[in-house]
Amino acid sequence: MHEDDLGPFFEPSGVALVGARRSPGFGYGIPIVLKRQGWEDRLRLVNPAGGELHSMPVYERIADVPDPTDLAVLIVPARTVPGVLEEIGARGIRHAIIETAGFAEVGDAGRALQGQAAEVARKHGIRVIGPNCVGVVNTATGFTTVEIVEDSFTPGSTSIIAQSGVFGNVLLDLLPEYRLYISKAATLGNRMDVNECDLLDYFLRDTETRVIMMYLEGAADGKLLRSTLSRVARVKPVLVLKSGRTSAGRAATASHTGSLSGEDDLYSAIFSQTGAIRAGNLEELVEMARVFSSQPLPRGNRLGIVTSSGSLGVMATDAAVASGLQVTPLPEATVRKIKDQAPEWMNVKNPLDVGPSNLFPKALTAMMEDPEIDMVLAINIFPFAVFRELKRRGYPASVWFGDIPSIRDIAPGKPLVVSAVGNSEFVADMRELCGAGVPVFVAPEPAASALAALYDYGVWRAAHGEAG
Amino acid sequence: MHEDDLGPFFEPSGVALVGARRSPGFGYGIPIVLKRQGWEDRLRLVNPAGGELHSMPVYERIADVPDPTDLAVLIVPARTVPGVLEEIGARGIRHAIIETAGFAEVGDAGRALQGQAAEVARKHGIRVIGPNCVGVVNTATGFTTVEIVEDSFTPGSTSIIAQSGVFGNVLLDLLPEYRLYISKAATLGNRMDVNECDLLDYFLRDTETRVIMMYLEGAADGKLLRSTLSRVARVKPVLVLKSGRTSAGRAATASHTGSLSGEDDLYSAIFSQTGAIRAGNLEELVEMARVFSSQPLPRGNRLGIVTSSGSLGVMATDAAVASGLQVTPLPEATVRKIKDQAPEWMNVKNPLDVGPSNLFPKALTAMMEDPEIDMVLAINIFPFAVFRELKRRGYPASVWFGDIPSIRDIAPGKPLVVSAVGNSEFVADMRELCGAGVPVFVAPEPAASALAALYDYGVWRAAHGEAG
Repeated sequence: MHEDDLGPFFEPSGVALVGARRSPGFGYGIPIVLKRQGWEDRLRLVNPAGGELHSMPVYERIADVPDPTDLAVLIVPARTVPGVLEEIGARGIRHAIIETAGFAEVGDAGRALQGQAAEVARKHGIRVIGPNCVGVVNTATGFTTVEIVEDSFTPGSTSIIAQSGVFGNVLLDLLPEYRLYISKAATLGNRMDVNECDLLDYFLRDTETRVIMMYLEGAADGKLLRSTLSRVARVKPVLVLKSGRTSAGRAATASHTGSLSGEDDLYSAIFSQTGAIRAGNLEELVEMARVFSSQPLPRGNRLGIVTSSGSLGVMATDAAVASGLQVTPLPEATVRKIKDQAPEWMNVKNPLDVGPSNLFPKALTAMMEDPEIDMVLAINIFPFAVFRELKRRGYPASVWFGDIPSIRDIAPGKPLVVSAVGNSEFVADMRELCGAGVPVFVAPEPAASALAALYDYGVWRAAHGEAG
Repeated sequence: MHEDDLGPFFEPSGVALVGARRSPGFGYGIPIVLKRQGWEDRLRLVNPAGGELHSMPVYERIADVPDPTDLAVLIVPARTVPGVLEEIGARGIRHAIIETAGFAEVGDAGRALQGQAAEVARKHGIRVIGPNCVGVVNTATGFTTVEIVEDSFTPGSTSIIAQSGVFGNVLLDLLPEYRLYISKAATLGNRMDVNECDLLDYFLRDTETRVIMMYLEGAADGKLLRSTLSRVARVKPVLVLKSGRTSAGRAATASHTGSLSGEDDLYSAIFSQTGAIRAGNLEELVEMARVFSSQPLPRGNRLGIVTSSGSLGVMATDAAVASGLQVTPLPEATVRKIKDQAPEWMNVKNPLDVGPSNLFPKALTAMMEDPEIDMVLAINIFPFAVFRELKRRGYPASVWFGDIPSIRDIAPGKPLVVSAVGNSEFVADMRELCGAGVPVFVAPEPAASALAALYDYGVWRAAHGEAG
């Protein structure tokens, strides 16, 4: 089938929520969120008991729901799913999200039930996401099949594919904390029909998606994953967290989403051959997404570091070089701009430790202007007791570190990231100072590693990719 | 000299602050903090201008300060330091902290000046910390030679040795965020006299110090470091962050604290031979310190994982096994306690994914009680929109995850750590729920790695150590 078939999952004309109910649970909570997001007119609640819920009518049968309705969300007991799918098919609905658990992930009986449901879906030509998932989110339209907080609806350009429902949900809770906003998210669960490759193709064509984050326990089809990734990653970065690296981890996945996760080396090969970017762990996945979603691809690997702490400059240098970046000797143009004004104790080199001088903004500006520096890491450090006292006296952070958004605009094609270590109030002030265009990391090493991943992807795409 | 000679650095009978002044800077700010901490009676401000500062008398000459005064803190121009040390020596003061920068770290002239200062100190038998540092903190007495925020004075059992002043300061800002409280901190700067080995020996004998964190750019004396660490690490864990791992990083250190950082392999050998625990980066240093300072050494490497997210359980398993822990098959005793009450869909194994059941507290309790599990990682996950709504209706976090401090007390000899992923309000609630005795990590992998480091140290100490 064509990947455009997935459209109604994210942009339904009308959605039937089968299993709406008065007692706590998804069937109670999801209608509240959808109503709040303006979906009342396009939401059809279904429950044999009928009546009203949250001041909306409840239809007793799927056959009764009005037009247009092109998506059904199932929150019903597992054993009733095949029958419900029959009714959905009879009503002419061709897209279904099955949130219910208790299928292939729980053993033989569940596997048989899932096969039975799949048979009904195939017969009616119903595309299915799930079972054992929490479905989808589309921030542009406020559509969701999962209860998420308001912040998670802020539209962005990163889209998520997560095999696990809870994990997808948790990512949606976590990412806005870092000002990382999403466009769409899909959780796949047992992948009775729709799998990660369908979604990759859909997000490839989706104009709102610029970066794809994917969490996999195992591929639905390794060969298909390879061919799909090789098409997608040359156009949009695909960041992958693949768990089950160890045999103990693989054993743990079997009972979770019922997938066999396969040998880790095979996945590493697939990712490196196709240009997909593999994260080593959850934190790295998020760190890379923050840089990929906000920064341009660099033209080279020459990193300039400006810091107000010598130690952290050294740590960043170690991490950058270990990840394959060059902490290049400070180019002459930048040296000239700094040298004249530098106090005697300052070593005008890279990393450039400005110490307690007032040269941080000037140094950062010079590095952004210098064509021989391809990307910049700023390490904003200020002992908090002093910072707080100065702030109280009317000296804002921009006095010490510069007007970061303006400095960022000097070279729109050059990646710039900030690391701010210390008290959380200080870090929050740095996030405020940097705005949406410059990600702030709480340690220098992950910032350097994420820049290196961005560079590596740029090199790969220059060799294999299509013009952006 | 005997290491007890360092006592007055942390517990002076009286301290002369040479370079107190009315204009912004350390000479203005430090007296404010010391006064607030109750040091007014034991603080002697010195400045040739005399008069008053912060309602305290300012002595014109060091010779004038009253008894007892056994420590001087120098915040004076670099070129005046040798002369000031003469006056300190003449006044019979035998301990000095030189905060002033502009010595060996800035080249030949600075190196000469530092040599001159060292000569004066030696002549008078003055022990010196610095120059180019911010000195010390002792939370038990509220003594400090650096401006830090109130939270950083909360007494704890971890002590810090940091070669760099700014970095030490930033650690003091950062650690209380994680409920990691310190006993003492010393920043060493150029190490004209007192070095990391002196401090290691001092902290070895200091009854308030249980864990030592150390940041080094290079050793003052490699052989001495080896012999000192081999004495200290068999009694107290020493967590080391050694920067300058790469040659670019090493080049950067030379101009920072004027130290040659040497080949990285040599340091790795020293640390592994002596039982010191090396952190790969700043975040890992902090993560390990949180576990080492709050958890007992485990008796074995069998890790039990209880989780409400299958995915995160898999990720934790991968990280644990990769770091050398065993995610052991769930012991029979625990299986029995869970199996009867487990819903059909639950796989009663390790990692134990309790999903949306209400078995999290029971599962965690069973693992803490089970003698065949040596340490426990709890992964507390709850989609935030639902968690927040349930909290509003009067269901606190303990309903879902148990009364963690009580569960912690079931097995005081068994390490327990928590990972909570998601919204920061959720993480804050988990920190509240867990209290001081159980560290909360924001991702599962670092929690697993830190437990592995704890186990490794336990094995090393069983083979080489003294009875705790």
